[in-house]
Amino acid sequence: MRSFSIFKSTSKLFNDYPISSRFLVLFTISTGGMVAYSESQTGNGLPNSGNKHMEPKKKKMVVLGTGWAGISFVKDLDPSMYDVKVISPRNYFAFTPLLPSVTCGTVEGRSIVEPIRNIIKKRNGEVKFHEAECTKIDAANKKIHCRSTFEYSPIPNREFSLEYDYLVVAIGAQVNTFNTPGVMEHCHFLKEVEDALRIRRCVIDRFEQAVLPDLSEEEKRKNLHFVIIGGGPTGVEFAAELHDFIWEDLVKLYSGVKDLVKITVIQSGDHILNTFDERISSFAEKKFSRDGIELLTGFRVVSVSEDSITMNAKKTGEVCAIPYGMALWSTGVGTRPVVKDFMEQIGQGHRRILETDEWLRVKGCEDVYAIGDCASVHQRKIIDDISKIFAAADKDNSGTLTIQEFQDVIDDILVRYPQVELYLKSHHMMDIKDLLRDAEGNEMQVDIEGFKSALLHVDTQMKSLPATAQVAAQQGAYLSRCFNRLEGCKANPEGPRRFRGSGRHTFLPFRYRHFGQFAPLGGEQAAAELPGDWVSIGHSTQWLWYSVYASKQVSWRTRTLVVSDWTRRFIFGRDSSRI
Amino acid sequence: MRSFSIFKSTSKLFNDYPISSRFLVLFTISTGGMVAYSESQTGNGLPNSGNKHMEPKKKKMVVLGTGWAGISFVKDLDPSMYDVKVISPRNYFAFTPLLPSVTCGTVEGRSIVEPIRNIIKKRNGEVKFHEAECTKIDAANKKIHCRSTFEYSPIPNREFSLEYDYLVVAIGAQVNTFNTPGVMEHCHFLKEVEDALRIRRCVIDRFEQAVLPDLSEEEKRKNLHFVIIGGGPTGVEFAAELHDFIWEDLVKLYSGVKDLVKITVIQSGDHILNTFDERISSFAEKKFSRDGIELLTGFRVVSVSEDSITMNAKKTGEVCAIPYGMALWSTGVGTRPVVKDFMEQIGQGHRRILETDEWLRVKGCEDVYAIGDCASVHQRKIIDDISKIFAAADKDNSGTLTIQEFQDVIDDILVRYPQVELYLKSHHMMDIKDLLRDAEGNEMQVDIEGFKSALLHVDTQMKSLPATAQVAAQQGAYLSRCFNRLEGCKANPEGPRRFRGSGRHTFLPFRYRHFGQFAPLGGEQAAAELPGDWVSIGHSTQWLWYSVYASKQVSWRTRTLVVSDWTRRFIFGRDSSRI
Repeated sequence: MRSFSIFKSTSKLFNDYPISSRFLVLFTISTGGMVAYSESQTGNGLPNSGNKHMEPKKKKMVVLGTGWAGISFVKDLDPSMYDVKVISPRNYFAFTPLLPSVTCGTVEGRSIVEPIRNIIKKRNGEVKFHEAECTKIDAANKKIHCRSTFEYSPIPNREFSLEYDYLVVAIGAQVNTFNTPGVMEHCHFLKEVEDALRIRRCVIDRFEQAVLPDLSEEEKRKNLHFVIIGGGPTGVEFAAELHDFIWEDLVKLYSGVKDLVKITVIQSGDHILNTFDERISSFAEKKFSRDGIELLTGFRVVSVSEDSITMNAKKTGEVCAIPYGMALWSTGVGTRPVVKDFMEQIGQGHRRILETDEWLRVKGCEDVYAIGDCASVHQRKIIDDISKIFAAADKDNSGTLTIQEFQDVIDDILVRYPQVELYLKSHHMMDIKDLLRDAEGNEMQVDIEGFKSALLHVDTQMKSLPATAQVAAQQGAYLSRCFNRLEGCKANPEGPRRFRGSGRHTFLPFRYRHFGQFAPLGGEQAAAELPGDWVSIGHSTQWLWYSVYASKQVSWRTRTLVVSDWTRRFIFGRDSSRI
Repeated sequence: MRSFSIFKSTSKLFNDYPISSRFLVLFTISTGGMVAYSESQTGNGLPNSGNKHMEPKKKKMVVLGTGWAGISFVKDLDPSMYDVKVISPRNYFAFTPLLPSVTCGTVEGRSIVEPIRNIIKKRNGEVKFHEAECTKIDAANKKIHCRSTFEYSPIPNREFSLEYDYLVVAIGAQVNTFNTPGVMEHCHFLKEVEDALRIRRCVIDRFEQAVLPDLSEEEKRKNLHFVIIGGGPTGVEFAAELHDFIWEDLVKLYSGVKDLVKITVIQSGDHILNTFDERISSFAEKKFSRDGIELLTGFRVVSVSEDSITMNAKKTGEVCAIPYGMALWSTGVGTRPVVKDFMEQIGQGHRRILETDEWLRVKGCEDVYAIGDCASVHQRKIIDDISKIFAAADKDNSGTLTIQEFQDVIDDILVRYPQVELYLKSHHMMDIKDLLRDAEGNEMQVDIEGFKSALLHVDTQMKSLPATAQVAAQQGAYLSRCFNRLEGCKANPEGPRRFRGSGRHTFLPFRYRHFGQFAPLGGEQAAAELPGDWVSIGHSTQWLWYSVYASKQVSWRTRTLVVSDWTRRFIFGRDSSRI
């Protein structure tokens, strides 16, 4: 049990899920390599800090979505305090970082999903789940409207509505085609497990079709041209998986057409993996070039037809079209219609994405929270509050601030405006007080203008959070922790001072901690950005990837399945049956 | 390696498939219990015994179908002698006896399939496979017409035709609804892996739908009423699997509706499993009654609507209708349209099923063979040939037959008319010569009339073969063995004397050997009919079932997967994710 306790301490996020003792019969997993990636406790924050009195009757909490954000929220929420209902059209949680592996059968689709009902089984209360789609959020009446979507249903699909006291929107994003003509009709996407399974069948189909009698070589080449549009982590990982699937497994079975296979990645930027460190991006490009994967960088796809993909070169404007057998669109994150409608209700209609404050409360309405890919956190600029901060710090109303006076508000500033810390770091300052020193390092008394100019460039450090599983999971965990401690924190607020109001915020604001990211590149090699600007590339990184991804599984069941899928692949290869 | 060699000797059928040495890393399977079920070598038979000279150019052999019959034929065929092409709309072989387990996730769909291309990889020649559907057999021109059926295809689906010198039709059967209205639209079937996966999703859907808000109890009951039409082995096994899935796994997750679940089996006969020994049938009925599975025996379904299943009681004619949530139609075997069309071409249009002779040659055309569920073997009646047999035996043309004269043709009769042996056995005779003895046991000289009357009742023992995997696999193996030995056997015929012609048949006729059958009944209990009229029922039989079904797997890959699926189920239960 030793390895399990180490495991537990390093990978808290999903481990307190009840486990049958029977799992001990199966594999034990080495977890040596995963410390670098383990989730934080994000111990801070505040949801609804209104002063409503907690009635003895439990408050109605409705959660929309069962992805990373929704599940990590529900999993940790104390259901003895709330009457929780979860709504989602999918009755399972999917471990989406492994979706590219599912497309080629390295891992089975079912191995990366866990039924919601297994996850929400709680000992001290009940969490209800309904498999339905939310069609409308009615924030004015604190209601949501839902519709069930069963195929072949003995009783008709119907609509129902639920009232809420708190609503957590964790509904995720949808594909964004940027209105490129033909993409919706002709391209594959990779958001859901079903997408991955469809891609897998499609790859096999293209090979089966290529070996039919009477095909011209041109037709065969067209059939076997796999195009990935978007050179981000998903697209690159799919290209790598597909390359391995074809060259490790399929060419043995379809040897007659192996010279006709081609994989192309189209990227509008100058490099693939451009959110990663340059070393990783350049390693990936070299590896792909060795592997024969064609990279078309600097091209933007303008339309996709049944026959071909049309794109133009961003520099020259030249237009060209390539025939293809299968195309994956793996770029762009779009807003779901129900969220779009909700945004219009609450005056966010002009925005691209739903906006929350730093406590993950949706701006413009009460008691609604949004986490994960469907929302973005708006970080308040320090420059907007600068006079209030100055006034709060300038206790003697002298019109100037001394270091001593400043000292008093430093902690609150650091908590409330995390960009300050980033700014200090990027300017190699050890201490926030350095902002109030002159070039010789002497302390200065500053007036409001001096204070403004000292902090003027701090806000340039603000960055919006990426739409990743890591962010979503941390947000869910943060929010559930706030809700669990709501009563206590109302009595003893833990948040920073309200510069614009009085008193303190109930909770610490949400703070994202980045634990790095992986880019598997095929051929048992991966690249990783680790905390502290470390970059790790190669075979050992792939093994780190294996251990991290095994450790992050939502249950011992899926962990066992994923590891046995990997083992199966090593021994028997990937299956090419078209089911 | 000891266990493997034992394994090989007891379970020949699929074992000479090349295995990577890497499998040794994984499980080893105890094979103790499977001797009773192991396949025979069916060492006898004759396909096309025409006198065509074998050209140096290889003969074109086309095989339709990749089910039990097709695969067991192709697997053993020597591709150095024939230019073999296999056509099927499925690029994999499915281990169909485990389909009921797939419906409830006891075994995954992918664990029971093996890609055709893995199976037909041969070292001494090439077998080609095309994923397409045969649309027409043109026996007059020795051609078949095919059509590819890819969804979302970059080049259009097209038709092509192939010429053959020998055609093996192993195309299987399709569902037969007996034209019952509504069955095709509203019922599930269980012929393909996709069917099983669809059923699995449907079962989960019914539970998810039953726990939606605002449903009346009546609607919930309707939703959770699972009806199986047909009390044969498939229907009964599905009912048992479903019962276990619900009561071992689903009720824990959907505890609010567990009292509303109902499983009903509708059987037109008086008993379920009526092809099995009466002890098994009665045990199954008692077990089902204890389990709360309702049996409606003596009812015939007359129509199925979206809402309800209408049936009449066979005895009273009374008509009643029951609401249902999901219905499985598991009765009836029908002829595929392409086979029906072929039958009309060759003068078999009036028949229900394609007929072959005892050498599996399709009657009414040349060089076409049919094996598996798509055909039935017509056993020649001895009474039709009786004068020829008498004439052949009566060497001295005396008009009477002595025991000594009879002695000469006995072996050929026993081989050519297997019903004789069954007749002797059923009449407790030790020797065929007993037929020519009088009541006191004295030898008689018989004339033609006496000979006829002695053999008059022999033909009553003829039985048509069941549409099972066991029959199909034996037929495939028999036929490939004949083709592999065609040249040798033409020179030295091994078959019985031709009573209607001269010389001997090239091959021994096909003879089916029944190795028993299983009926898993749920709750880790099974029933088995074993050779020698043995009946075995209970938990130990379930373990026998496990070991037999593991041993019969087509490859070490599927064997490993199936066994690990079983293990996973024991440890973690079945998955209820709706994918």
